[in-house]
Amino acid sequence: MTLPTTDLYLDFLCPFAWRGVELADVLRRERGLPFHLRHFSLVQGNHPENVDRKAPTWWLHEQAAEAGNAPQQTSLRAFLAAQAAARQGEEAAWAFTLALFRARHERNAELNSATINGAAQEARLDLTRFAADLANDRELRERLAADLRDAAVLGVFGTPTFVLPSGNAAYLRFSRLIRDPEKAQAVWELYGSVLHSEAGIETIKRPR
Amino acid sequence: MTLPTTDLYLDFLCPFAWRGVELADVLRRERGLPFHLRHFSLVQGNHPENVDRKAPTWWLHEQAAEAGNAPQQTSLRAFLAAQAAARQGEEAAWAFTLALFRARHERNAELNSATINGAAQEARLDLTRFAADLANDRELRERLAADLRDAAVLGVFGTPTFVLPSGNAAYLRFSRLIRDPEKAQAVWELYGSVLHSEAGIETIKRPR
Repeated sequence: MTLPTTDLYLDFLCPFAWRGVELADVLRRERGLPFHLRHFSLVQGNHPENVDRKAPTWWLHEQAAEAGNAPQQTSLRAFLAAQAAARQGEEAAWAFTLALFRARHERNAELNSATINGAAQEARLDLTRFAADLANDRELRERLAADLRDAAVLGVFGTPTFVLPSGNAAYLRFSRLIRDPEKAQAVWELYGSVLHSEAGIETIKRPR
Repeated sequence: MTLPTTDLYLDFLCPFAWRGVELADVLRRERGLPFHLRHFSLVQGNHPENVDRKAPTWWLHEQAAEAGNAPQQTSLRAFLAAQAAARQGEEAAWAFTLALFRARHERNAELNSATINGAAQEARLDLTRFAADLANDRELRERLAADLRDAAVLGVFGTPTFVLPSGNAAYLRFSRLIRDPEKAQAVWELYGSVLHSEAGIETIKRPR
């Protein structure tokens, strides 16, 4: 039996996305829940040219590698590297994504080439193949484009956003890292209960 | 035994605040949970002069009755009327608040003097006293100011926002009216579970 998959939209810039990916990783390893890693760009989502979130005119995958500010360049680089890692399979995608998130948000590394190569090693990728795939820029950008387009259709505005098999989707922002399977399952069930509540809950948001 | 009170910030302009007040009314009548009705102004919260949500410089209670656009005038009028109703006691405050919300959001009435007087009648207020209290503009504005100041300190940005006895607070937006006590309790427990989750959940928000 194959369980239906939950899409998880992430941006490597975002510490909340990091915690969301760690949560999903616990659930997939310890509870067998399938998640699919997808990319949503905060730089694109917040770009002043993009007036309608669901119909962007400025797309990150169309930008030159050296164009724009540091968040733009580093997030594009990280997305393309993750697309290259994913060519080595599902487990490679998870290992690389987690390694890169931990380098950035646990160890405060910059999202530069050295950090990306370090994450590829930590994830035990085939480094020769990784370098070859990274050079195939056009294909990586097409794969990124597919994620960005799906995120736009859905109206994703932040990461992590989970899209449940029921079609219900929401941004989930939480501040504490969860690696305990019991706690991960409790949070996940709570999130599902909110999205499937008879009240039609649209938002729960603390003032900051 | 007296249960600790939950503050409920509302704005009569807001249909989500209406559903929140209906939810709280079911819980207080059917489950004995105490709620305290407080006022937060969306017009003030979204005013361009108020750059820092926690330190507004433009306050609704300082504005002339006939100043500003329709939402500003009608929300100020409704707040002051509700402050006048509350001078007749807790039950009067609830009856008037519910009557005015239902007039506005169930029957699509404007928040004008006729609607306010109709709500006062429906709530069985002492109409002579209500008119006298309404004329005491300065005191009503001071009471409103106290609510607006407390909301600003908390960083309230939308209504309904509930402040639990634990100090945890969040905006709760839901789309379906709930008058069934079982369902009301389920939603309320779910909301509390989110706010008290070990994950430190800050936001759950659907894309729109």
